[in-house]
Amino acid sequence: MKNKIAVGIDIGGTNAELGWVNKDGKVLHRQIFKTADFTEIEQMVETIGNAINAQIKNLDHCEILGLGIGAPNGNFYKGTIEFAPNLHWKGVLPLAEMFAKKTGLTTKLTNDANAAAYAEHIYGAAKEMNNFLVVTLGTGLGSGIVVNGNVLYGATGFAGEMGHTKTMDNGRQCGCGRLGCLETYVSATGLARTTVELLAQSRQISVLRDKEKITSEDVFLAASSGDELALKAIKYTTTIFGKHLADYVALFSPEAIFLTGGLANAHSLLIPHTEEVMNQSVLKVFTNTVKIYPSALLKENAGLIGAAAMLFDID
Amino acid sequence: MKNKIAVGIDIGGTNAELGWVNKDGKVLHRQIFKTADFTEIEQMVETIGNAINAQIKNLDHCEILGLGIGAPNGNFYKGTIEFAPNLHWKGVLPLAEMFAKKTGLTTKLTNDANAAAYAEHIYGAAKEMNNFLVVTLGTGLGSGIVVNGNVLYGATGFAGEMGHTKTMDNGRQCGCGRLGCLETYVSATGLARTTVELLAQSRQISVLRDKEKITSEDVFLAASSGDELALKAIKYTTTIFGKHLADYVALFSPEAIFLTGGLANAHSLLIPHTEEVMNQSVLKVFTNTVKIYPSALLKENAGLIGAAAMLFDID
Repeated sequence: MKNKIAVGIDIGGTNAELGWVNKDGKVLHRQIFKTADFTEIEQMVETIGNAINAQIKNLDHCEILGLGIGAPNGNFYKGTIEFAPNLHWKGVLPLAEMFAKKTGLTTKLTNDANAAAYAEHIYGAAKEMNNFLVVTLGTGLGSGIVVNGNVLYGATGFAGEMGHTKTMDNGRQCGCGRLGCLETYVSATGLARTTVELLAQSRQISVLRDKEKITSEDVFLAASSGDELALKAIKYTTTIFGKHLADYVALFSPEAIFLTGGLANAHSLLIPHTEEVMNQSVLKVFTNTVKIYPSALLKENAGLIGAAAMLFDID
Repeated sequence: MKNKIAVGIDIGGTNAELGWVNKDGKVLHRQIFKTADFTEIEQMVETIGNAINAQIKNLDHCEILGLGIGAPNGNFYKGTIEFAPNLHWKGVLPLAEMFAKKTGLTTKLTNDANAAAYAEHIYGAAKEMNNFLVVTLGTGLGSGIVVNGNVLYGATGFAGEMGHTKTMDNGRQCGCGRLGCLETYVSATGLARTTVELLAQSRQISVLRDKEKITSEDVFLAASSGDELALKAIKYTTTIFGKHLADYVALFSPEAIFLTGGLANAHSLLIPHTEEVMNQSVLKVFTNTVKIYPSALLKENAGLIGAAAMLFDID
């Protein structure tokens, strides 16, 4: 019997990563492209498509199940990327169809956070779970929501936009054009914005005062060495996050919540207080019913292997 | 072939209604009991159980599929009512098991808002829909959420508690003991509270100033005759509701949202502005993707026929 392999592509604002993934979620071979190098989307399909086609010729001892793509603002039903604020190609892009035509492979496309949910379900810590949330904390906040064993797509294919639920009226301006979205507070960017605000509001001594441009990594580093202002910024973030998760618990009653994305690497600074606030805030019947964990795939590219996983999956 | 019939019970704070429902959702026979008459839950099971058993004897030309119960704080998985603030029996009550034992019927139990969702799905306006929300606006705010054709129960069986997601920090006190739950603003009680607040805050002339105890019906009646303060109270309510629904649209991407319960009878005063605010507030990709409708079963007891529908359903 031939070994089964799926091709995965993870498209982000900075990199587009191509990988050949086996049924155990192992990436056998990978190539990284700079997203910005592709001025037009057609160039990307041409270049990455050629790379795929070249490899296929070397793999006739394998059965290639197809191609899975994870991308911001990806629509599973339509195979399109639609109006992605973090990508430089604009409008509605029929990416799945373009890649299918170029490679001849069965092609599925989903949003990057949903891809992370497939990865956690099939290769990660949610193997035995039918109801769970995956929250990707990077530049923004994405979410993949699994209900009764299936990723939640809703009527449009765009369901699960937790990052764009509202934290407060007249809150911070979001990339989506609205005010007060959760991701303007709870994300790498959100944490940096909070820190800058706290620095501006107080005269508190902090190692972060010397920084020209503050990143979430700077804040975590400062917090780890006891910087009070950095700790305050993290506490503000986890308080908002915990309160919001309390609402999602009341709506979805998940078995667990998994954190992934760059910010999740600092899970030991994030999870305990988030969980505490979540349990304090939630409707009593849900108290202590849900644990928050770092993704079991934090060191992998979950978007990539999750995209490929769609081809192994039944969904 | 024998006619198929299911028994439904809808348990509320005031009445417990028993009905014999056919596969078209028609209630062939019904009996209404006063919930408060049953000091102990055992008395209710005894009395209603006896009524069921007496009828079964008259129905041997029918096939009785089983018994469905809709009740506040009902848990579908466990068949229990748990800590229902609006019922006078306290603790965890294994009601499905008690009725099954008394009647010998296959017995299913769910929360009353979920029962309304089954009813809408099987007999109402959501027959062709796989993703929709049913919001029951009565004393509180309940919700039945249907995802991929199935009612959302989550890991605990309690999912879908929209009424207890948070509207604002340090908001109104809720029956659940927390502050700022949606149902303290958007419900019959919530509308009355808003009206009382507006009367206290202003000196605006209103027919409602003469009332000793204001109900949501009083507010709608006043609004219908152009009372500015009543209209303001309704606008405040629909603004909060529309903003919240925008979040649920981003999470669930439903095909439609159905309103039921007492307050929904005034749908013409509620829906247009709620829908307007929802579409203004929602993430752009969802704008105008969702309509809000009154339930097609507003004149029925959707809780009763939905409870019975669980026996006809595949879920």
